[in-house]
Amino acid sequence: SISFDPTEHPHRRYNPLTDQWVLVSPHRAKRPWQGQQEKVAEEEKPSHDPNCYLCPRNARITGELNPDYKKPYVFRNDFSALLPETPAPEQTADPLFQSSRAQGESRVICFSPDHSKTLPLLTVEEITEVVKVWREQLRELGQKYQWVQIFENKGAAMGCSNPHPHGQIWANSFLPNEVARADLNQKKYFEKQGSVLLLDYAKRELERKERIVVETEHWLAVVPYWAVWPFETLLMPKKAHIKRLTDLTEEQSRDLALALKKLTTKYDNLFEISFPYSMGFHAAPFNGEENEHWQLHAHFYPPLLRSATVRKFMVGYEMLGESQRDLTAEQAAARLRDLSEVHYKMRK
Amino acid sequence: SISFDPTEHPHRRYNPLTDQWVLVSPHRAKRPWQGQQEKVAEEEKPSHDPNCYLCPRNARITGELNPDYKKPYVFRNDFSALLPETPAPEQTADPLFQSSRAQGESRVICFSPDHSKTLPLLTVEEITEVVKVWREQLRELGQKYQWVQIFENKGAAMGCSNPHPHGQIWANSFLPNEVARADLNQKKYFEKQGSVLLLDYAKRELERKERIVVETEHWLAVVPYWAVWPFETLLMPKKAHIKRLTDLTEEQSRDLALALKKLTTKYDNLFEISFPYSMGFHAAPFNGEENEHWQLHAHFYPPLLRSATVRKFMVGYEMLGESQRDLTAEQAAARLRDLSEVHYKMRK
Ligand SMILES: O=P(O)(O)O[C@H]1O[C@H](CO)[C@@H](O)[C@H](O)[C@H]1O
Ligand SMILES: O=P(O)(O)O[C@H]1O[C@H](CO)[C@@H](O)[C@H](O)[C@H]1O
Repeated sequence: SISFDPTEHPHRRYNPLTDQWVLVSPHRAKRPWQGQQEKVAEEEKPSHDPNCYLCPRNARITGELNPDYKKPYVFRNDFSALLPETPAPEQTADPLFQSSRAQGESRVICFSPDHSKTLPLLTVEEITEVVKVWREQLRELGQKYQWVQIFENKGAAMGCSNPHPHGQIWANSFLPNEVARADLNQKKYFEKQGSVLLLDYAKRELERKERIVVETEHWLAVVPYWAVWPFETLLMPKKAHIKRLTDLTEEQSRDLALALKKLTTKYDNLFEISFPYSMGFHAAPFNGEENEHWQLHAHFYPPLLRSATVRKFMVGYEMLGESQRDLTAEQAAARLRDLSEVHYKMRK
Repeated sequence: SISFDPTEHPHRRYNPLTDQWVLVSPHRAKRPWQGQQEKVAEEEKPSHDPNCYLCPRNARITGELNPDYKKPYVFRNDFSALLPETPAPEQTADPLFQSSRAQGESRVICFSPDHSKTLPLLTVEEITEVVKVWREQLRELGQKYQWVQIFENKGAAMGCSNPHPHGQIWANSFLPNEVARADLNQKKYFEKQGSVLLLDYAKRELERKERIVVETEHWLAVVPYWAVWPFETLLMPKKAHIKRLTDLTEEQSRDLALALKKLTTKYDNLFEISFPYSMGFHAAPFNGEENEHWQLHAHFYPPLLRSATVRKFMVGYEMLGESQRDLTAEQAAARLRDLSEVHYKMRK
């Protein structure tokens, strides 16, 4: 009988953070592609775009003027998905028609006044300012809300409607599905193993080395063993137990900025384009619990598969069955790891 | 204090099939859109395209020739994500590195020899032939595999790489995540309530009428109370308890074809384009159990939001937090319900 080869044979891998499986079909990478081609974003953007509603001094959709900001700038999303004062729906006993109250706030954070500077093109000092603002926002909103989702949608392929480098902050009066899952599964692991899931995991990845993408003094980015998206990564503390962004020391904050710069630079270098992704942080919620089982981490979910124009579609089988990937986590990690940490635009 | 209005106030709704919540933000429909525009597929397709590898008599990518088929035609996917003979990965005790064996088969089903005829453009008799082939495939593959996922990815926006009307059939030696969830939650409901979840649900929707999109003698399509995608629908038996497609009578089969024709016609009529979606069936698995809790149903997940070119992106907040929608299920259902059941192409 043939022996198992993960780069040849379909298999499933288990994600202990979500309690979900992913189908890995590495032999399928040979499949020709005749479907949709993504548009590649124009490469040369001005530092200030008079038509951009996020640039300093310009008018937003509401007519309001942006200040002449020099550092990361936060404002209330003009079309917030969540509102602070929302009445509660009526409760019914019918298990098939359950609804619940949702209160919250949505904010936008412009990373830089410079329209052309995505995260990898900012200096470590400038990214440190972004981390600082994330921490301040978290501290403020965490007093009022159970959950504060910090995230970035980058690129038109990820539903981003404005190329000015920016992220979002959505505060919630409830624990969203994915956060509740991560909470539950880290808790189960902690109760069973007596240790923190992602601390154990980082330790193993540092020993095994085969899925490491970026390593700094305090941070580690890997393509997780259970990655779903082709070049998905998980960024986490290397050794320290850190529950939230607000618990970072100044040194760990600055080093996080460095890790973000390195990781997003590698992403851009992969296909030599501004690499689309959605990213965001998961961390201990503000639910009044100790949350010893929680470890701060960031997920990067980039859609591209083979080139700047060919993405992975999570569609029929994936929506109805389970996520499926066409290359192994180890193959993806090796490709990212071998890329330069100097941005291609800085080399030309 | 203001009283709750579901068309104005953000709230969450609960999906009892998946045990997940969805955030409904109906006031956000007013948001302007400056992001990615979808391409609209060309309207006029020939009945036979010499460059299509799915048309009768043409060569596939492997060089193999398609027969001169006149009815739905099934063949093994040339780039199957699953293979029947796959060795098992080695088992380790480490809870962070769990993998498991995945065996299976992937097949393609061409719905018609006519390159230009998507489901709504076929006659009820022709769709009845498709249902017949689905039933045969299920009967055959169900003898060997626990799970048989029948699905269709329609349109470039849903990762479909060939416009020739076709679907796929992926057989699995395991229960994929989503099926395992649907199994578990229907079972829990059955144990607690002593009745079948989707039978109870269909009954309530027939009484309430506000989410009905299509109704035939035996079938009911609604925008479910907990819909995630803007125009998502759930197609299910109206009154009969039916565990699988293979359990349908001839009359129920033919009526399913009629329901599919009506539903897909309404979809095309919404924006007067060939409407993209992923659809597929969930039904009792072949796991040797009684499965009294199971009710056959089909999910339709279409991505478009406001027009032929503006889709809903399930990105940052949705991937890291939870799914979010911009109009209520009732609003979406009313729009679909009011559309003609005669295809716009048949009217011109
Ligand atoms: O096999 P196809 O149609 O070429 O591929 C399409 O459907 C598959 C099953 O949902 C997905 O895994 C692919 O990402 C998608 O492009
Ligand atoms: O608020 P934005 O950036 O315009 O909108 C984008 O991100 C949101 C949060 O992930 C999504 O709900 C939208 O579908 C997407 O287009």
